[in-house]
Amino acid sequence: MHHTSNTLKLKHLGIDTQQEYFVYMRSDCHICISEGFEALTRLEVTVKGRTIIATLNVLRSDLLQAGEASLSESAWKVLQAEESDTIIFGHLEPVRSMSHVRAKMYGNRLDEEAFMDIISDVSEGKYSNVELAAFITACASNNFNATEIVGLTKAMVAIGAKLDWEQKIVVDKHCVGGLPGNRTTPIVVSIIAAAGLTIPKTSSRAITSPAGTADTMETMAPVDLSLEEIRRVVGQEGGCIVWGGAVKLSPADDILIKIEKALDIDSTGQMIASVLSKKIAAGSTHVVIDIPVGKTAKVRSQEEAKKLEFCFRTVGRKIGLAIKVLITDGSQPVGRGIGPALEALDVLAVLRQEKNFPKDLAERATLIAGSILEIAGKASTGEGQAKALEYLNAGVAWKKFKAICAAQGGFREPKAGRLQYEVKAPTKGRIVEIDNRRLAKVAKLSGAPSRLGAGVLLHSKTGQFLKKGDPMFTIFAETPGELSYSIVYLEKEFNEIIRLG
Amino acid sequence: MHHTSNTLKLKHLGIDTQQEYFVYMRSDCHICISEGFEALTRLEVTVKGRTIIATLNVLRSDLLQAGEASLSESAWKVLQAEESDTIIFGHLEPVRSMSHVRAKMYGNRLDEEAFMDIISDVSEGKYSNVELAAFITACASNNFNATEIVGLTKAMVAIGAKLDWEQKIVVDKHCVGGLPGNRTTPIVVSIIAAAGLTIPKTSSRAITSPAGTADTMETMAPVDLSLEEIRRVVGQEGGCIVWGGAVKLSPADDILIKIEKALDIDSTGQMIASVLSKKIAAGSTHVVIDIPVGKTAKVRSQEEAKKLEFCFRTVGRKIGLAIKVLITDGSQPVGRGIGPALEALDVLAVLRQEKNFPKDLAERATLIAGSILEIAGKASTGEGQAKALEYLNAGVAWKKFKAICAAQGGFREPKAGRLQYEVKAPTKGRIVEIDNRRLAKVAKLSGAPSRLGAGVLLHSKTGQFLKKGDPMFTIFAETPGELSYSIVYLEKEFNEIIRLG
Repeated sequence: MHHTSNTLKLKHLGIDTQQEYFVYMRSDCHICISEGFEALTRLEVTVKGRTIIATLNVLRSDLLQAGEASLSESAWKVLQAEESDTIIFGHLEPVRSMSHVRAKMYGNRLDEEAFMDIISDVSEGKYSNVELAAFITACASNNFNATEIVGLTKAMVAIGAKLDWEQKIVVDKHCVGGLPGNRTTPIVVSIIAAAGLTIPKTSSRAITSPAGTADTMETMAPVDLSLEEIRRVVGQEGGCIVWGGAVKLSPADDILIKIEKALDIDSTGQMIASVLSKKIAAGSTHVVIDIPVGKTAKVRSQEEAKKLEFCFRTVGRKIGLAIKVLITDGSQPVGRGIGPALEALDVLAVLRQEKNFPKDLAERATLIAGSILEIAGKASTGEGQAKALEYLNAGVAWKKFKAICAAQGGFREPKAGRLQYEVKAPTKGRIVEIDNRRLAKVAKLSGAPSRLGAGVLLHSKTGQFLKKGDPMFTIFAETPGELSYSIVYLEKEFNEIIRLG
Repeated sequence: MHHTSNTLKLKHLGIDTQQEYFVYMRSDCHICISEGFEALTRLEVTVKGRTIIATLNVLRSDLLQAGEASLSESAWKVLQAEESDTIIFGHLEPVRSMSHVRAKMYGNRLDEEAFMDIISDVSEGKYSNVELAAFITACASNNFNATEIVGLTKAMVAIGAKLDWEQKIVVDKHCVGGLPGNRTTPIVVSIIAAAGLTIPKTSSRAITSPAGTADTMETMAPVDLSLEEIRRVVGQEGGCIVWGGAVKLSPADDILIKIEKALDIDSTGQMIASVLSKKIAAGSTHVVIDIPVGKTAKVRSQEEAKKLEFCFRTVGRKIGLAIKVLITDGSQPVGRGIGPALEALDVLAVLRQEKNFPKDLAERATLIAGSILEIAGKASTGEGQAKALEYLNAGVAWKKFKAICAAQGGFREPKAGRLQYEVKAPTKGRIVEIDNRRLAKVAKLSGAPSRLGAGVLLHSKTGQFLKKGDPMFTIFAETPGELSYSIVYLEKEFNEIIRLG
């Protein structure tokens, strides 16, 4: 349907709608009128030979003149559009793979080929947010079996980039998350690489948390590496700590995960496929999974954790990954800092063996590193953690960390935010409970993760006795507005954040 | 969290995002930064004491100045916002009823109370499109049983407005749809009201079709009546033909239906709840449901129709509605016109008994009217259609229709579009098949339903023999652009629209 009446001129408006592509037209535009715009209309749009599918929004003002159209920022970028480019509109043939999604909605099983169709279309941006939500929901139920998780995992691997290390054993770790702080990864990678193993670690940025491993690592070294650079760093040092989003190991997963967050669901099937597809794409053979369990962590009971462990192991076996699951304490944050730079300072304190380093973080990191040494055959069962601790105490882990940072583009010291607000105990008492979620919110309101120095520094942990006026934690910020924003929330929720008994 | 730093000034931008509310902020705005905008952030926004939930979009241009924010058209309207009003931002407490939706995702049953919570939040605009899609998907599977359909139906009735006629028998009709033309409603209502029964008919406007009954009726009389006016018209004439959307008999359904269309699914449970809740809210006791079956109709097989009939009757029994289902021929359009005015001209030809009136439309309308007369006890079984035909032939149906139009605000003659394009048979042959969906698309491209005179007028039906050059159908339009737009599509799809054998 390429008719001259189907073209308009582009004007930049700068509307950022996140990942879903939007196209803007005047309400009196003939294309708009013929397509109809009552039912979340989707259109095929072409600029300079590149074609995407976009959702129509209508402008009832003079932001656009007659004959003009605009695109949301993500669409503008992917089409490499420029001011005054010609934009061509075509009818949308319905996204074919949505028929599989509908079949799943009605309770049918999907095979590997169906997942391949869906994941391929998702990765090309053909699904609207509404369609993505339908796919995620249809796969969320316990009507999604292990064979389907395997199919979804394989489809995610097939669509993305892949790394190959020509080694028999390549190790990795993953934490199911939900715990602020808990920044074990840089320590684990340093120990494991120092032990001579290969660990090509890709991590994510925060989506709804105050910091992801990639955000924290970025305060110490560049993390935005290409596949070629990752190959060089890992080839040279045995390990890396980089941002996975830059190399698109699982592009569809990056898209799906945002809708899952919006729906506040953690579908077991999607989560396992998401984690394991990235491990396979990174070339791993042996993986340790950490599942923290706690009332305000992601996994809230031992029973739930055991179920998850079973799923991970079943799917791992079917796709040829050796998996070891650790179920750990998720009742409170691990380490003291919450926020990119504050967590990085914890990591450095452990690696440099500074006085007063956070013991719980060192303990958790060596537990995970020990497990990896054991499954990779570098330590006998039960002796892994002691061996990991040796690498830490001897300073070789710190040396390896510096070498990895240098290879990634150079080490730098993280800096905590210049503005501080100390929160003192209002009465004497023992800390009975810390709410992970509310504390994370204080850190986010103070500016984390986009302000790298912002966040929360805990001075006390569960079980500790405090006198009235003892420091409980400090909020760090980079701007006064953000500091006051987090204080307002703090004052409202104070009794829920840290409970004194 | 009502802190002075949480306010901005409103500026009107006129971005129409349909029903989902959006709020626009500059990317460097501190509220934007603290809330984060990576994960389809939802915010509570308050203007002049009215509060809604809106999805955040970020502006990376100077459409907004520092300190300014904007709202999408639907949000602007519902908040009765004006230029420079103060807008206050608050944290969104998660929509509580989404926990029921998540429970349903995981395969649990929902009770009436859960549906009440969900439908109440949906009707208040608290659900984002992504959340609506999750709800619809979770309820689409065959894991949604009759008890749940009843719960959903009752919740929809409880939330909306209601009519009460203080009569033992109040009748209604509904067509499951998917067939262009097929505008039986104005004829059926006229016959039934003329027979002395009460039929308070509310109809919908087109969402993805070239015309809804409300669009067609609007070319002959006002349809945008208040509850009070409906009471007066029905009290006076026994029947009405009005737009249901104006009176909000089922406000949640109006919202859900747009997302269903976007997902291209017709969940049986949702559809039955949608139809029956509106009938109960309108005060009906006896309802005839027409299910046209055809390859390109909504219901494609007798088996599917039988299943649907069973569901309608089961749910109807549980909520106290007497239901009679008619399974009819849906292989081709009924009547000649497709588009608001063209369909209205068909309706008038039947009511006025004009020469060459469309026989199939008269036949279908009297079949339905006859069934209503039978279930309401106004005709013995098997004699309803003949009796309906008498009302039509005697001119009393036409008289009643004129009286209803007068009561609704005055009768007017519908006008077909001034531009016409006749499509002739390219060869001789018999019409083997007409594709309802493609023909509807030709009508929509020509401007229907927003251009009331636009659409398609069929000159021939399935089974008819044509000589080369005989007229097959005429496209009507109101603007040359729209006419050419539909001709381009027609030329591409010609052989698929009407097949000659």
